[in-house]
Amino acid sequence: MSPPAPLEVDMVGVTDTSAMPVPDPLTINGVPTWREKMGQMPTGVAAACSSDMFKSPACYSKPKAKRFDHYFSLEAKSRKASTLKTAAQFLKNPGMISLGGGLPSADYFPLESLDMKVPTVPGFSPEATKKTGTTLHAGKHDIKEGKSLYDLEISLNYGQATGAAQLLRFVTEHTEIIHHPPYSDWQCTLTAGSTYAWDTALRLFCERGDYILLEEYTFASAAETAWPLGLKAAAIAIDEQGLIPEAMDDLLSNWDEKARGARKPFVLYTIPTGQNPTGATQSAERRKAVYKVAQKHDVIIVEDEPYYFLQMQPYVGQDAPAPPPPANHDEFIKSLVPSFLSLDVDGRVVRLESFSKVVAPGSRVGWIVASEQIIERFVRNFEVSSQNPSGISQLVLYKLLDEHWGHSGYLDWLINLRLEYTHRRDALLHSCEKHLPTEIAHWVPPAAGMFHWIEIDWKKHPGVAAGKPREEIEEQIFLSAVDHCVLLSRGSWFKADSSAVMEKMFFRATYAAASSEKIDEAISRFAECLRDQFKL
Amino acid sequence: MSPPAPLEVDMVGVTDTSAMPVPDPLTINGVPTWREKMGQMPTGVAAACSSDMFKSPACYSKPKAKRFDHYFSLEAKSRKASTLKTAAQFLKNPGMISLGGGLPSADYFPLESLDMKVPTVPGFSPEATKKTGTTLHAGKHDIKEGKSLYDLEISLNYGQATGAAQLLRFVTEHTEIIHHPPYSDWQCTLTAGSTYAWDTALRLFCERGDYILLEEYTFASAAETAWPLGLKAAAIAIDEQGLIPEAMDDLLSNWDEKARGARKPFVLYTIPTGQNPTGATQSAERRKAVYKVAQKHDVIIVEDEPYYFLQMQPYVGQDAPAPPPPANHDEFIKSLVPSFLSLDVDGRVVRLESFSKVVAPGSRVGWIVASEQIIERFVRNFEVSSQNPSGISQLVLYKLLDEHWGHSGYLDWLINLRLEYTHRRDALLHSCEKHLPTEIAHWVPPAAGMFHWIEIDWKKHPGVAAGKPREEIEEQIFLSAVDHCVLLSRGSWFKADSSAVMEKMFFRATYAAASSEKIDEAISRFAECLRDQFKL
Repeated sequence: MSPPAPLEVDMVGVTDTSAMPVPDPLTINGVPTWREKMGQMPTGVAAACSSDMFKSPACYSKPKAKRFDHYFSLEAKSRKASTLKTAAQFLKNPGMISLGGGLPSADYFPLESLDMKVPTVPGFSPEATKKTGTTLHAGKHDIKEGKSLYDLEISLNYGQATGAAQLLRFVTEHTEIIHHPPYSDWQCTLTAGSTYAWDTALRLFCERGDYILLEEYTFASAAETAWPLGLKAAAIAIDEQGLIPEAMDDLLSNWDEKARGARKPFVLYTIPTGQNPTGATQSAERRKAVYKVAQKHDVIIVEDEPYYFLQMQPYVGQDAPAPPPPANHDEFIKSLVPSFLSLDVDGRVVRLESFSKVVAPGSRVGWIVASEQIIERFVRNFEVSSQNPSGISQLVLYKLLDEHWGHSGYLDWLINLRLEYTHRRDALLHSCEKHLPTEIAHWVPPAAGMFHWIEIDWKKHPGVAAGKPREEIEEQIFLSAVDHCVLLSRGSWFKADSSAVMEKMFFRATYAAASSEKIDEAISRFAECLRDQFKL
Repeated sequence: MSPPAPLEVDMVGVTDTSAMPVPDPLTINGVPTWREKMGQMPTGVAAACSSDMFKSPACYSKPKAKRFDHYFSLEAKSRKASTLKTAAQFLKNPGMISLGGGLPSADYFPLESLDMKVPTVPGFSPEATKKTGTTLHAGKHDIKEGKSLYDLEISLNYGQATGAAQLLRFVTEHTEIIHHPPYSDWQCTLTAGSTYAWDTALRLFCERGDYILLEEYTFASAAETAWPLGLKAAAIAIDEQGLIPEAMDDLLSNWDEKARGARKPFVLYTIPTGQNPTGATQSAERRKAVYKVAQKHDVIIVEDEPYYFLQMQPYVGQDAPAPPPPANHDEFIKSLVPSFLSLDVDGRVVRLESFSKVVAPGSRVGWIVASEQIIERFVRNFEVSSQNPSGISQLVLYKLLDEHWGHSGYLDWLINLRLEYTHRRDALLHSCEKHLPTEIAHWVPPAAGMFHWIEIDWKKHPGVAAGKPREEIEEQIFLSAVDHCVLLSRGSWFKADSSAVMEKMFFRATYAAASSEKIDEAISRFAECLRDQFKL
């Protein structure tokens, strides 16, 4: 537990010094040109860095974000910059010998090299990787030896809370290419996973006793992050497109501080794409409407977007021909629903990004995109808590995403994932169409994510006539499914407000993990369970 | 951001089923016997595990820890177990197909294998590693293929907040071998670094407005973790052995709740070995005395021990022959000052362990040892925050520490580090003896850690006669050193209580990073600066 004393590296300005044009907005093909102009990468131990080193000039022609001082918690407001970091400014002096920071010598890191075998575009399957995969090599002193911009000497030492410049550059460029936020002073910081980012966001904005805005069914763990902090749920009704803006407006317009014993909520947690648990995806129009309500009531939108790149091909049923995959990167990017970040003229969106669903959860690396003011408060917090995500994870991701695939190969990988998940979802939907009794089971084909949300018309259950409450019937069906050797998640587990009365009944099924054969068997078992239960 | 639905694996009891005796207490040589008895390792995706699977029977003959319910914060008390984890119990049913948890398929983890080149005992230097190092291989499906107990399929997926069983076993055994805690229900959990563990500890025990007990000079970042949470410093005087128990007793015995506006402090943060910044190491007697005061006032001791294995050979000066290194593992273990954990009959110690100084800070993997009750509260917190340390880091550490070195090789590595740091410290001390003006510069040779604490007799500074305050003179010396191109840390940066008046003046130098030649040059520059400043 020692301070990562940052070795300051001269910040490279964004001044245009050559005649090469940087595309506006930045595109994948424009990245090499822009990198060349940008100049040197900070490669020292715990080198200070920020997204401003990597954003293209096009970003800066836009207006600045609004300030959100009025929403920071007492904890966030009272957080100061690290004392020990004040020494870092002196490290720039030429010839300085530092006996200041307690950084261990790389001689004592017992790892000389790391090799990883990864897929080569376009051979993304495990089988193809075995045949055509590439082995990437990371040596201890690759930077000094001119072999790479990142190595074990740096990644195994202390780092900055923003994450290493090498990976921060990649996610900053990726953010610009995909979302081109409409204000100028946006930044990124890496985080030790997006769950941790959400925990920190709550501590940054909320005080004990506050309400937060949640979708009426939401990711149970995200809600459970909030309760011990003394926060309460103000649940917003949802439909097959997720969050209903009118419901959000109503709730906020009619907020009664006295009756609620709390100020009007100003933090919205939403999973706009492939929502967990409902699988709903907000359309572009829906997002615009929600954003307007957020502006009207000055609400900060925390968009948790692990499933953004699990947007799938349109579902066309079993017999129609499959729609063609995106023909190129542009078509792929255009096929994606615009994020809240891309609509965010005010800088009121905190976007939580994750590699968990698109690379691997075990990396425990995610990133946040928000205004400079908000990112700065996150970073101050990380400095004295998680410090930074694992350097080993950062190195693996950098070698794979930046050095090997580049932005182009990464988008190819994401298109591949899109088709794989389309295939998985279609298999589940076909099984549901084949097996489930449609008299009582209804669903909307999910357009994104990992989850299928099945509504059960519980009022037709024989238990109703016998006076059994909804909750008891849900449990009975769940346990009967368990008896039939199939495990689904109960809809009530995802209620944002546990005191809310549920009118409907749902079960959540995922198509992420099991094979098509197992999914078919599982759904056939669930169908049998339903027939048993409903005496069909 | 998805719940790590734990796949329950049958807990293996500690019942003795064979005639092989497990050494009591557990020793390095006893580990293979004990592992054989213990039975199967839980190797599933996010498999539930606890230290109880790995502690030897000898642990259970001791009394249980005291309960500390009265000290948990409102946040900690209101934390419940995860709803989604309730489903995990059903996964044990044979033949169950789960469409429950949103775990991605390993087919989509773009890493087929990871190879790492590491030192082979006893060739620990980078040069030796290049020649005689071993390349460890981790494949994606090594577990299924019977090649290893841990692989990429598991480490790249979601995990448990305790960390993976594979690495938890190693740290549990290591804890037992080194510390054999004197109560029965101790446990370990991995954490995403010990800084994060400290942040979580504060949220677990403290409420806004509380005081915490700190050494009067302490690790600045640790203190800065506490301030934004509304905590205040109750600073305890220290001497060359660190924390003075009588001072701690006085402070607590005379605590005036009304005058202070806060309840009596009950959390002590201490760095017992190679303290940062003073380099002081508490002797065994000192620790016993501090523990008694903690018992008397019912104080929880958070011992932050990153430097425990940077205990060095005794310092004998330049001309005396170097004392022989530990002849074997037993002698090495016996040479270590007993930890607070090893004295902890009550279960009131929370030990923060770190790989940062003995393997690499970039792993961002540490662990905590404490009573079952306290560890359980940490784990509940981690589940909805950091989740678990990077799986890639865990895999690298497991392959190196468990599969390759084993406990024996790891102790060899630690003995090697001991000698390396002895060499570094000696070089610094020799340079100090050679260069520094002893009229005004005094020090105690550090017995552990990375830091050398140099007292400067500031009252002899010409500025005093001119009426300059101590603080101004410290700054003047610091800036003069910078002008001489040497960077040290100012003692005042480490004051626990910023309002306390400093009688003395110190500068902190580290011998961790620079070479002997650079250290000598740096100290010679500092000496020149002091001569300039003090007109010597």
